[in-house]
Amino acid sequence: MENFNFHSPTEFVFGKGRENGCGIYVKKYGGHKVLVHFGSGSVVRSGLLDRIKASLEKEGIPYVLLGGVHPNPRDTKVYEGIELCRKEGVDLILAVGGGSVIDSAKAIAIGVPYKGDFWDFYSGKAVPEAALPVGTVLTIAAAGSEGSGDSVITKEDGMWKRGTGSTLLRPKFSIMNPELTCTLPAYQTACGATDIMAHVFERYFTNTPEVEITDRLCEAVLLTMVNETPRVIKDPNNYDARANIMWAGTVAHTNICGVGREQDWNSHGIEHELSGLYDCAHGAGLAVVMPSWMEYVMKHDVNRFANMAVRVFGVAMDENNPENTALEGIKAFRRFLHDIGMPINFSEIGAKEEDIPVLVEKFGLGETGRTGGFVQLSSDDVKEILKIAAHATL
Amino acid sequence: MENFNFHSPTEFVFGKGRENGCGIYVKKYGGHKVLVHFGSGSVVRSGLLDRIKASLEKEGIPYVLLGGVHPNPRDTKVYEGIELCRKEGVDLILAVGGGSVIDSAKAIAIGVPYKGDFWDFYSGKAVPEAALPVGTVLTIAAAGSEGSGDSVITKEDGMWKRGTGSTLLRPKFSIMNPELTCTLPAYQTACGATDIMAHVFERYFTNTPEVEITDRLCEAVLLTMVNETPRVIKDPNNYDARANIMWAGTVAHTNICGVGREQDWNSHGIEHELSGLYDCAHGAGLAVVMPSWMEYVMKHDVNRFANMAVRVFGVAMDENNPENTALEGIKAFRRFLHDIGMPINFSEIGAKEEDIPVLVEKFGLGETGRTGGFVQLSSDDVKEILKIAAHATL
Repeated sequence: MENFNFHSPTEFVFGKGRENGCGIYVKKYGGHKVLVHFGSGSVVRSGLLDRIKASLEKEGIPYVLLGGVHPNPRDTKVYEGIELCRKEGVDLILAVGGGSVIDSAKAIAIGVPYKGDFWDFYSGKAVPEAALPVGTVLTIAAAGSEGSGDSVITKEDGMWKRGTGSTLLRPKFSIMNPELTCTLPAYQTACGATDIMAHVFERYFTNTPEVEITDRLCEAVLLTMVNETPRVIKDPNNYDARANIMWAGTVAHTNICGVGREQDWNSHGIEHELSGLYDCAHGAGLAVVMPSWMEYVMKHDVNRFANMAVRVFGVAMDENNPENTALEGIKAFRRFLHDIGMPINFSEIGAKEEDIPVLVEKFGLGETGRTGGFVQLSSDDVKEILKIAAHATL
Repeated sequence: MENFNFHSPTEFVFGKGRENGCGIYVKKYGGHKVLVHFGSGSVVRSGLLDRIKASLEKEGIPYVLLGGVHPNPRDTKVYEGIELCRKEGVDLILAVGGGSVIDSAKAIAIGVPYKGDFWDFYSGKAVPEAALPVGTVLTIAAAGSEGSGDSVITKEDGMWKRGTGSTLLRPKFSIMNPELTCTLPAYQTACGATDIMAHVFERYFTNTPEVEITDRLCEAVLLTMVNETPRVIKDPNNYDARANIMWAGTVAHTNICGVGREQDWNSHGIEHELSGLYDCAHGAGLAVVMPSWMEYVMKHDVNRFANMAVRVFGVAMDENNPENTALEGIKAFRRFLHDIGMPINFSEIGAKEEDIPVLVEKFGLGETGRTGGFVQLSSDDVKEILKIAAHATL
């Protein structure tokens, strides 16, 4: 196991009706003037925004509203938010929505006290040193941003999708009511589930030896997702299954499952180019990329893939040929994704094989670059993975 | 799943040599004058205390020392610590040791700003409302106090062992170097492992339905302990196995595995009477009590016990008779405890069957009281469990 620091100071406020007390937590964490940040009209139509407003008003906390955050949130909205916060003297940002809204709120939070262009944090030019506190009211189990120190933003000019991370970006509190996710369409629910599983797999495939506890924690989250996701696809109003998935989504991405081990975020990186170019859902892109990445890198550590197959997907171990077991595991994962309604190849997300050179170029490794922890990838490797993804079948 | 709040703001600083930077974390969390609190001479003899002093001195932080904390820490030492802190103007307590030292440090931390007797928090007369910050340098994987908001103290006058809990008692930081545990005698290592497993079992056995994610997380920790503990008993210097156990011990008790579900802490409660009366190690007492409690309550939910047997101890499921499977699981647990060197019955910890009435009386349920979540116990039930414990065999 490698040395690590783990610091997840977010207060999670979980369960039915908890959003009705959000004003209490805004006050507890020092908010006197709040930016309520949200996405589409569903937050308005469902009455959620009214309940948030009512709770803030009950605590006597003034607020300004900024809606309209896109999935794959854009830099343009972040600039708008930074300006609004400065003008209004906002001292806490309350993100009401999913990963996109929360990531946008985090970008605004580090942008407000920063003198330069907030994009510096995403292009790698600067590291966040101060941030407004962020609270969240989560409406979809997916990105894990409610408990992570990460944020991903897309620059409209060129559709560059880039991320940043810092303990400063961990929300002060996150209100998580699984009921709010019951009205999600099945497709979005499945996209979220895929994202959660991907967050675990990106940590699970590692070269760090002897990491039994984090291996087992990863498998715990994956088993939960394999068992609970089909239940909510079948019955969207199954509160307990929704609750299990929601908490699993947080555990998947606070990094408690990933500490002390080398990680590999190449599937996320490659997917970012897909959703950046085609504006497909992040989870849908992951469903296409991740099993293809697995097939491509599997031989690097067949036993780890075979273990995953046995422990997570209940594949029988073929002692004479663990490679078969490993392949069966990847197949089972792809079948699981298909069964919950996810795409598994390019055509199902509207991607085109002829765009692969563009995708590879945007990935940015050039002729000699390499990236990744479990298996270092070159531009040629990324091309091969995308080719597998283009033609994948069950 | 039930509604819950989960808030674990402790910064965990994990790995080789990390204690040498403890002064940095004392400074980060606002310490200007530190009480260094510790137990036996081993902290001195091993050179650990000198390394702690050196790090504090490097950061220019003055300190006072208070050693001599007993296993099953006593109120008398707490009173001494409170007086010393007040006299010296201490503003952060650094606990260097295991659960006893950390629990004693927590008691001092809530005692210093309190006008009454600190025991009020343990007798249930008062709830902590303020505390000095506590940091820890952990030397044994066991109690999980490095990441919990709990503290247990024994009142010397009558040997009453009682606990209190509050988010205020969560350490600000915990430095965890698995190397420091390599010199522990096998018996203490095994006691610690038993305590860690008990912390999970007390959460695992629940009446709350549909708690898949926390079930799986509990099983993840248990599987880790079943796999890793025999390795460190065989090879005390196995760093990676020590590291897996140490992180498992923290995960077992921050409550991330226990949120949203009813818990049952009766085995711990009953054990407290054993170690209170005989001053045996807490883990040793748990090894005697916990499987006996399991046998006694098993019929309340045979399927849950059968699941545990299958998933944690690899027992084959007997579909025609799940009760057999459940019993085999408890047997496997007791054999595991015996194999790592733990006692399994009264005689092995120097307890006497004729003391059972005294133990039951001290447990304090009287004629009509009941306690427990999974199964409510009366004084008669406790007596029966202790009888099983008195005579348990493999």
